[in-house]
Amino acid sequence: MTAYDPSNVFAKILRGELPSHLLYEDDATIAIMDIMPRADGHALVIPKMACRNIFDAPPEALNAVALTTQKLARAVKSAFAADGVTIQQFNESAGGQVVFHLHVHIMPRFEGIALKPHSGAMEKLEVLSANAGKIRAALKNL
Amino acid sequence: MTAYDPSNVFAKILRGELPSHLLYEDDATIAIMDIMPRADGHALVIPKMACRNIFDAPPEALNAVALTTQKLARAVKSAFAADGVTIQQFNESAGGQVVFHLHVHIMPRFEGIALKPHSGAMEKLEVLSANAGKIRAALKNL
Repeated sequence: MTAYDPSNVFAKILRGELPSHLLYEDDATIAIMDIMPRADGHALVIPKMACRNIFDAPPEALNAVALTTQKLARAVKSAFAADGVTIQQFNESAGGQVVFHLHVHIMPRFEGIALKPHSGAMEKLEVLSANAGKIRAALKNL
Repeated sequence: MTAYDPSNVFAKILRGELPSHLLYEDDATIAIMDIMPRADGHALVIPKMACRNIFDAPPEALNAVALTTQKLARAVKSAFAADGVTIQQFNESAGGQVVFHLHVHIMPRFEGIALKPHSGAMEKLEVLSANAGKIRAALKNL
């Protein structure tokens, strides 16, 4: 198994070395906006513990991520009046993983509207900020 | 929120009213083969508790599913010598959900090979049986 590399982007966000649109934080997890969203409101849940992906994650990280993922799924559904939510979690490059710190994708979905392709294009900061505000407000009302 | 409907296919499998390729069982979860696999070895993790999806799932079901998902991710990676694993969990029709009992998809992945489209075609029983055997053997060796 490949060892955890602490130079990844999410480790830098967790250490405060890079900014993020923080949506939620507890002892074991954070939730932030995906800056290359495949849908408006695309959020990420990240454990604070250092783990590469599902293969090396300790059970307490998996449990904490599962509970925060539920909170964020409910919040994004409410914030965007979504019809559904798609959750994805990628492990290793072949599995779709790009950043090698465990994370879960949470995407609000609407009837008849496909996810945007993963283009690699960054969303405008003002759009991310506005969507983050909606999700934070929804989290308060859960 | 739409109420849980106990006539769904996974509830029938849990009650023993329909057969499945059982891979794993503990107090709180089962894992079975997806009969319309998007990759060889495509497995599903299902909580025994009755819940429609992530929106109404009790925390104990989410935690149990998370731990069984890790077991199965490790097992399918090992069983098929996969390069990675993609995990998906769909909520409501717009989110991709087809069977309305919470479940997690676990798909072995290989460099350069895309997932098969969800065609609705059932895999041959002998292929499912052979792949189930490989995953059960890998689970024993975890």
